[in-house]
Amino acid sequence: MKIGILGYGNLGRGVECAIMQNADCELKAVFTRRDPASVKLITAGVPVVNVSEIEKYKDDIDVLVICGGSATDLPEMTPEYTKYFNVIDSFDTHARIPEHFANVDKIAKETGHIALISAGWDPGMFSLLRLYGNCILPEGQDYTFWGKGVSQGHSDAIRRVEGVKNGKQYTIPVAEALEAVRAGKNPELTTRQKHIRECFVVPKEGADLAKIEEDIKTMPNYFSDYDTTVHFISEEEFERDHKEIPHGGFVFRSGVTGANKEHSHVIEYSLKLDSNPEFTASVIIAYARAINRLHSEGVNGCKTVFDIAPAYLSPLSGEELRAHML
Amino acid sequence: MKIGILGYGNLGRGVECAIMQNADCELKAVFTRRDPASVKLITAGVPVVNVSEIEKYKDDIDVLVICGGSATDLPEMTPEYTKYFNVIDSFDTHARIPEHFANVDKIAKETGHIALISAGWDPGMFSLLRLYGNCILPEGQDYTFWGKGVSQGHSDAIRRVEGVKNGKQYTIPVAEALEAVRAGKNPELTTRQKHIRECFVVPKEGADLAKIEEDIKTMPNYFSDYDTTVHFISEEEFERDHKEIPHGGFVFRSGVTGANKEHSHVIEYSLKLDSNPEFTASVIIAYARAINRLHSEGVNGCKTVFDIAPAYLSPLSGEELRAHML
Repeated sequence: MKIGILGYGNLGRGVECAIMQNADCELKAVFTRRDPASVKLITAGVPVVNVSEIEKYKDDIDVLVICGGSATDLPEMTPEYTKYFNVIDSFDTHARIPEHFANVDKIAKETGHIALISAGWDPGMFSLLRLYGNCILPEGQDYTFWGKGVSQGHSDAIRRVEGVKNGKQYTIPVAEALEAVRAGKNPELTTRQKHIRECFVVPKEGADLAKIEEDIKTMPNYFSDYDTTVHFISEEEFERDHKEIPHGGFVFRSGVTGANKEHSHVIEYSLKLDSNPEFTASVIIAYARAINRLHSEGVNGCKTVFDIAPAYLSPLSGEELRAHML
Repeated sequence: MKIGILGYGNLGRGVECAIMQNADCELKAVFTRRDPASVKLITAGVPVVNVSEIEKYKDDIDVLVICGGSATDLPEMTPEYTKYFNVIDSFDTHARIPEHFANVDKIAKETGHIALISAGWDPGMFSLLRLYGNCILPEGQDYTFWGKGVSQGHSDAIRRVEGVKNGKQYTIPVAEALEAVRAGKNPELTTRQKHIRECFVVPKEGADLAKIEEDIKTMPNYFSDYDTTVHFISEEEFERDHKEIPHGGFVFRSGVTGANKEHSHVIEYSLKLDSNPEFTASVIIAYARAINRLHSEGVNGCKTVFDIAPAYLSPLSGEELRAHML
């Protein structure tokens, strides 16, 4: 399977690493909006090409992985490149998925391509687990917790505060809330009861630390509804302890069965990820394999993880899967 | 969706309960090898029919759920009734799945029916999680733990010991092993290090308790490779504390990503089930919905959970799923 990567940031590099771990995948080219000479790949011998020339590669690539931001990049890029390629993205603005799906589906059907949007872990694996849980236990409750992990949006918000030189925010599930859900107690949880927010801030020289802390803790939408802690650290500590991008979380479905609903059940799925972009990229490559196969069977249009039979993700045959994994 | 149940034991009753929780499902008939007059259903107004008359119902049932034992019932029954119906079973003898699949697939294709074998949680949901985990993290390790829960096979083995009136065995994962796997330590675990076995035994009057305990603990295959504890209890305690059939377990996939495999990830899926047969039945009904839909799209042959796109399990439309669950 010949893969192209469009956009070479953390996610694009993660896709490149995932390709190296899958023997049936080959990185064909990386496309960038930057000067290609400024982009240094991990893989030797793969061309870096300005995105303006991407159309020339339309017969050389089985699946194009579009690594852009959900706010402005993907709503434009995914429909555009679906004209020329089978594509996959990790669009994660949950509220705008129906609109993005419709835009991509229209072009995919017109041009005979297949596209898969919103691959990753949330949306992605967490969505799948929500779906399976709801179908198996129709009378029950859903819980999703995120963390411990870095929230890019909240880290960006910290860095916009006056007097802040650098900062990183970790979202952490509240242990008592996890325990109550795990015990099948079906708690009603407020925003504050579900997650805490921990901030590591490098202040500018001479900055008013009390004011920074106050500005962060009272920031609407981002922090004011949470119990937030702020730690001031040096640039050296930041570089040493906070360079990685870990993440993870928990999806629960609890529910009841029985003639009198007398039996309770708890389904729990959790991820502990050292690298959010590399795990997301690993999910993307598995789904790239799936859509490439489906396309070779004549399928086109826009898909999500809900539409893909699990066997399509694996390089193994149906016989091998039944013999070794069922 | 009109459902028939063949076999009315714990699993059959679980299927009946699951049908009550799914508004798009209707129980059409229960088929039994016993005298129908001796079978009392929970649902009012549903006929109980001797299995010898099952063919008469072939146009009235969308999916027949075959609730039989994997050792001798299902290898015969599932191929046989695939001649007349779309069928689903929970065949769980992992080593014989390829053979069972081939037998059922042949008849399903000849008669234009669809069959799904090995639905439930292991095989079933645990298999799915193993598959997803392996596809996402191709370089890694799998771990499956069972329990805490009742092992029917081990309970049967206890009851065959001389001097035992009644008995029940609980399989329990070793907490330290779970923690090591969860922490990403990738331990190599022996049989004894993974599970312990706890037995509750009602002895016959005057039985030699020391000998019963010795006979259980040294029983090859069942107990000799495990740390086993034996508790002697009264018939009253047994009735009070050990009538339920709880089960559950854990599936882990741990693996590495990154240019130098420097990042570790742990995926964990766990089930805590008050009723093993009712949860299994709930999975079965979700997959019955899926195969009924696939059949209406013209699909036939034998399938497993690996072959079913998740969206088919849900009564919701693709639009609803994308808007609310992705």
